[in-house]
Amino acid sequence: MSNKPTFTSAAEAEAAFYEALARSDLDAMMAVWSEDEEVVCVHPDNPRLVGLASVRESWRQLFTGKVKLSVRTSHRVVTATMQLEVHSVIEHIAVEGEKRLQPPMVATNVYMRGALGWRLVMHHASAAPENPHAARPDAPRIVH
Amino acid sequence: MSNKPTFTSAAEAEAAFYEALARSDLDAMMAVWSEDEEVVCVHPDNPRLVGLASVRESWRQLFTGKVKLSVRTSHRVVTATMQLEVHSVIEHIAVEGEKRLQPPMVATNVYMRGALGWRLVMHHASAAPENPHAARPDAPRIVH
Repeated sequence: MSNKPTFTSAAEAEAAFYEALARSDLDAMMAVWSEDEEVVCVHPDNPRLVGLASVRESWRQLFTGKVKLSVRTSHRVVTATMQLEVHSVIEHIAVEGEKRLQPPMVATNVYMRGALGWRLVMHHASAAPENPHAARPDAPRIVH
Repeated sequence: MSNKPTFTSAAEAEAAFYEALARSDLDAMMAVWSEDEEVVCVHPDNPRLVGLASVRESWRQLFTGKVKLSVRTSHRVVTATMQLEVHSVIEHIAVEGEKRLQPPMVATNVYMRGALGWRLVMHHASAAPENPHAARPDAPRIVH
């Protein structure tokens, strides 16, 4: 029925996620997401999306825009069990045609192992400036 | 050796987390966090913190400030296995003495089951305005 790739590890699924993002490839992006779980996606400074249809639509909109992004990740911290893995990564985002890097983001990516290998079930990304008050002078002084 | 409470479910640990926050109780807050795993904490619009010492210091600073917060959570989406649970929640934050609610936040909370019950290993919170461009006119137009 499906020609979707099988990811044999969460790390492999994560690599495919960021490759799909760099190529603005919607099919490759959606192949990384789980079809079994109630998926959750949080794009920076946007409302939380729940469910595959909303998540797909958000990537479709991003990929049809003119902005091309490439993301390098670093400083991965992993919490892993046999069936579920959570990766916290710092995202370094470059916009095609711009020399300057965007301020760093932090992402929490959750992968689950199912019958068809590892799939993404949650992606939560947000700004993580190194100097928060310089980056957002309007930011409230409460940290939570 | 320890008088720390044992949480028999991730939901119980989560309730204790938000109670500790509402009471600005540092000991109760740190009793929720795992001492076994490399913990991660992201406060909204702040750099990611890794390790118990940094995480503890961030809560100490928050709790010694003058701002008292109470947080109600809603719309919990759970991804669960026997040993690891991930909760995505919407946080509705009230600042003591202010009538108006803060804009909603989204949090991804990760709990692991160890010998001493369920403990928090990651907390990632960020702004999730219902209308992102109204809330942050300076927000970049890229969503990732």
